Amino acid sequence: MLSVINSGAMLLLRRCRGLTLLSTRRLPVAPAVASCAVRLRSSSAEDQGSYQRAHRPGWRHAVAGLLAGTGAVLAYGLHQHKAEQEAAYPIFSQEEVTSHRSLQDGVWVTYKGGVYDITEFVAMHPGGDKILLAAGGALEPFWALYAVHNQEHVLEMLSEYKVGELNAEDLKKQKTMQTLDPYSSDPERHPVLRINNLKPFNAEPPPEILSDSFITPSAFFFKRNHLPVPQVDPATYLLQVEGLPGGLLTLSLEELKTRFPKHTVTATLQCAGNRRSEMNAVKQVKGLNWGIAAISNATWSGARLRDVLLAAGYGPDVARRAGHVQFEGLDKDVTGTTYGASIPLNKAVSEEGDVLLAYEMNGADLPADHGYPVRVVVPGVVGARNVKWLGKIIVSADESSSHWQQNDYKGFSPGTDWDTVNFKSAPAIQELPVQSAITAPADGAVVDRSSEELTVKGYAWSGGGREVVRVDVSLDGGKTWQVAQIRSSEKGQAPEGTPPTGRAWAWKLWEITAPLPPGAKELKIVCKAVDNSYNMQPDTVAPIWNLRGVLSNAWHRVNVKIREDEREE
Amino acid sequence: MLSVINSGAMLLLRRCRGLTLLSTRRLPVAPAVASCAVRLRSSSAEDQGSYQRAHRPGWRHAVAGLLAGTGAVLAYGLHQHKAEQEAAYPIFSQEEVTSHRSLQDGVWVTYKGGVYDITEFVAMHPGGDKILLAAGGALEPFWALYAVHNQEHVLEMLSEYKVGELNAEDLKKQKTMQTLDPYSSDPERHPVLRINNLKPFNAEPPPEILSDSFITPSAFFFKRNHLPVPQVDPATYLLQVEGLPGGLLTLSLEELKTRFPKHTVTATLQCAGNRRSEMNAVKQVKGLNWGIAAISNATWSGARLRDVLLAAGYGPDVARRAGHVQFEGLDKDVTGTTYGASIPLNKAVSEEGDVLLAYEMNGADLPADHGYPVRVVVPGVVGARNVKWLGKIIVSADESSSHWQQNDYKGFSPGTDWDTVNFKSAPAIQELPVQSAITAPADGAVVDRSSEELTVKGYAWSGGGREVVRVDVSLDGGKTWQVAQIRSSEKGQAPEGTPPTGRAWAWKLWEITAPLPPGAKELKIVCKAVDNSYNMQPDTVAPIWNLRGVLSNAWHRVNVKIREDEREE
Repeated sequence: MLSVINSGAMLLLRRCRGLTLLSTRRLPVAPAVASCAVRLRSSSAEDQGSYQRAHRPGWRHAVAGLLAGTGAVLAYGLHQHKAEQEAAYPIFSQEEVTSHRSLQDGVWVTYKGGVYDITEFVAMHPGGDKILLAAGGALEPFWALYAVHNQEHVLEMLSEYKVGELNAEDLKKQKTMQTLDPYSSDPERHPVLRINNLKPFNAEPPPEILSDSFITPSAFFFKRNHLPVPQVDPATYLLQVEGLPGGLLTLSLEELKTRFPKHTVTATLQCAGNRRSEMNAVKQVKGLNWGIAAISNATWSGARLRDVLLAAGYGPDVARRAGHVQFEGLDKDVTGTTYGASIPLNKAVSEEGDVLLAYEMNGADLPADHGYPVRVVVPGVVGARNVKWLGKIIVSADESSSHWQQNDYKGFSPGTDWDTVNFKSAPAIQELPVQSAITAPADGAVVDRSSEELTVKGYAWSGGGREVVRVDVSLDGGKTWQVAQIRSSEKGQAPEGTPPTGRAWAWKLWEITAPLPPGAKELKIVCKAVDNSYNMQPDTVAPIWNLRGVLSNAWHRVNVKIREDEREE
Repeated sequence: MLSVINSGAMLLLRRCRGLTLLSTRRLPVAPAVASCAVRLRSSSAEDQGSYQRAHRPGWRHAVAGLLAGTGAVLAYGLHQHKAEQEAAYPIFSQEEVTSHRSLQDGVWVTYKGGVYDITEFVAMHPGGDKILLAAGGALEPFWALYAVHNQEHVLEMLSEYKVGELNAEDLKKQKTMQTLDPYSSDPERHPVLRINNLKPFNAEPPPEILSDSFITPSAFFFKRNHLPVPQVDPATYLLQVEGLPGGLLTLSLEELKTRFPKHTVTATLQCAGNRRSEMNAVKQVKGLNWGIAAISNATWSGARLRDVLLAAGYGPDVARRAGHVQFEGLDKDVTGTTYGASIPLNKAVSEEGDVLLAYEMNGADLPADHGYPVRVVVPGVVGARNVKWLGKIIVSADESSSHWQQNDYKGFSPGTDWDTVNFKSAPAIQELPVQSAITAPADGAVVDRSSEELTVKGYAWSGGGREVVRVDVSLDGGKTWQVAQIRSSEKGQAPEGTPPTGRAWAWKLWEITAPLPPGAKELKIVCKAVDNSYNMQPDTVAPIWNLRGVLSNAWHRVNVKIREDEREE
């Protein structure tokens, strides 16, 4: 029978430990299959895109194939279960629900007056153990935070675990207690942004906007939030600095601005997941489906982290015992866990590292989405370490223990899957590799033959302050190459000059105008950049594919059709 | 008629300005064609491999094709010229020869008693204008230095320009005057080395030796000399340091060893041309035909350059006016030009740059081939900047003006050729990109099916102190990948531990043992490394091909045949 299962479904089956149990209690086979499939795409509550993608045709086909393939056994299970579901449910008090808060006692939750025993589901939850935080209580505040749950098929999955109903009095209490949508105070955003996820807000500008401006206007700068935007009162804001011989240093916003010289750096930030959609096209990965615009360039002003650490007592003795500077954001989830990350100490204290505690972006106060009132800007380093709404700095022997430092934002071999991955085996992403992409024309665009030539535009950048020194462009899929014109300033303005070695923090915009090749019906446009360590982009996506879909920096490819003139048709 | 010329010959014709003259004097068409073809492969007197390669079948075919293609006109020219050559030659005095020392007066040289008017050849000389240094005198001392000339076809080319003979008395004087072979005092070398060029000496160890030892024994360490090995007396050796507020600092070897702390660094050096042979396989490049072993790893001890610069008065004010530290070797050519290079000032003075003025290699005095008594070791930076037989250090606003810094060791687009190249447009190579190669098995090896498994071994390294964090190995040409075991120490010894961020100067050796895939008749083994900036190696050679054949770091590929057991045959 198994031979009729398609290979995708085989993969799902093989990887889902839950299925091997074939539960004898309530046979929740359908949700187990569904959640296993989801789990392949997501294993983190912070990853808001994973449930969403489950709605796509690809996902539906996979599950359909799986169900079709497993055949009669599953069909029987589903039938039997349906029959059970129609029975009347017992009534429970909140107290009874709350007594089920562990795998031993069972894990019960409530949702809109229903009581659910989700004990069996815990191991299969895409967000991992975090589900236990909801044990004994209402799901609503969690689902408000992790908005990915607000989808029909998640409700369907939940319904399979229903064991009773909450009594009317306790339900009324719950309703008045339930918190508001934690995202309700998120700021307004510009409608031009392409939204990858609404809660938390993740969005990128249209690519053609990117290459029109060396400095990305703040409203168009890509947004990558992991949690709700916190409301921070600048008058009472306090930044804490820990782990240095001077003891705890606490700085108000005013002190940060007045006690330390204001330093300005033009730096490009890039999300580790930029261009993830190209990895998804090879094989589904876990994460938001970013296009090519999860990268932007801004001018940042603030105190240098180095200066603040020196004020807090940093000295060579510290370097001998500590290796990392941890940052904690003021953005937090329902459990109070804040966003966190760390960077190597030598980057933080280097005179040439240019790490800022920034309070201005493009000459104005930081916008709420970009970390108001204070964020870290770590030039040359992946966006995820540029912690926004900065609350605390800790100098430590250890990296940040946060989920995002330890079990996310790391690169793996294309042969590593969610069953074999060992997050300890890979370093946390810091400096990013060389990158470039074509912002115009768009893939699938049509060019008239009468226009005779074509202008191709894009961006290029490399991590670690390595300057992009050349961008090669091909119109024939990589057989022949031309060198693009590069600029490192706003159009019409004089270039900023060559940055000091190792401090090229800003991207380059490039363009090339080439005649349309006679006879060609299609152009396969490719770009690749070279940085001043002469690192090149890999040719293709599949050999750098990784389960988290990060570090997607293969040659960028755009296909364009040439339309012959009407008179020639 | 031109339509019968093959495309290679077309290229040669189009690029050779000399041919467009179709000289009316002595119709030296054959040598013009020949030298143009050579010029395509070489444009530098320092490049000793170029004339040698002219002997290969590929070259002979190109010229044969060219001559066949140009047909009757050339055939007539050759015939006429041959007739002229058989006439008796006039006798000249050395004084008459010496009066021809410019393009205006004609450029005459002598060789073994013959007098040659090479005026027309000057523009076509693969080594450029340097040929004018020989004007009016004997070729022998130059050809002793640039041993690439000692080949039959070079003599054939010269013979076409013969205009007379030197009188007997002057010939006798010349013979007694002529210098000895400048390479006669080069040291003995280990016979295991694979010699790419004898004078100057360039050789690499067999690959399988490389991966047997984390520290490469000095005798096996690849040798890359640009000029004869100078004889330096350690008792009178003086190192000069210029360009700092303290004025000229002069240090004896003893002072270098005693005035500054001894610092030890394990660092891998790699020639910019390592793996050039793979680029040659795509399309001929200019340069020595290195295999995969122009890379080695040693322990170096010496004074830190930073400490010496501080002693010579380096301070923050210097950083504002200077940007480079230039090095001059004591090795020089017949014109007195020394080898030279420079590195960025911030690398030189950084506490974390670890740049050494090394006087020990692997615990002993530097060997003659590696720069005795003092060389620069610039960890993470291309071999060419690690100047040997160090004579002078100059802190300057400018890069070294040497040929090797300005017009060599730079990377270009695959579309750039010797007619379009602008050396000013590319930065001098400093940090090298991520690299790896398979040292065993060798390409073309045969494995017995009965051995059941195969061990693949190799090295991996990245420039700029970026640590290699993973090596992926494929046995099926890159379709599927496994992660290799990495070690960072001598086999059997404890690893040295994780180097500080940005200071991973030593390579990693790696290996993987995998079962022979059932049914496979051949394995297409591929390796690719990832450094901690997550830079990857490009997939293929052609898109990174460049006219100088440097920076060859595409995936390394080795094909192995599986021999079935006798009983199965």
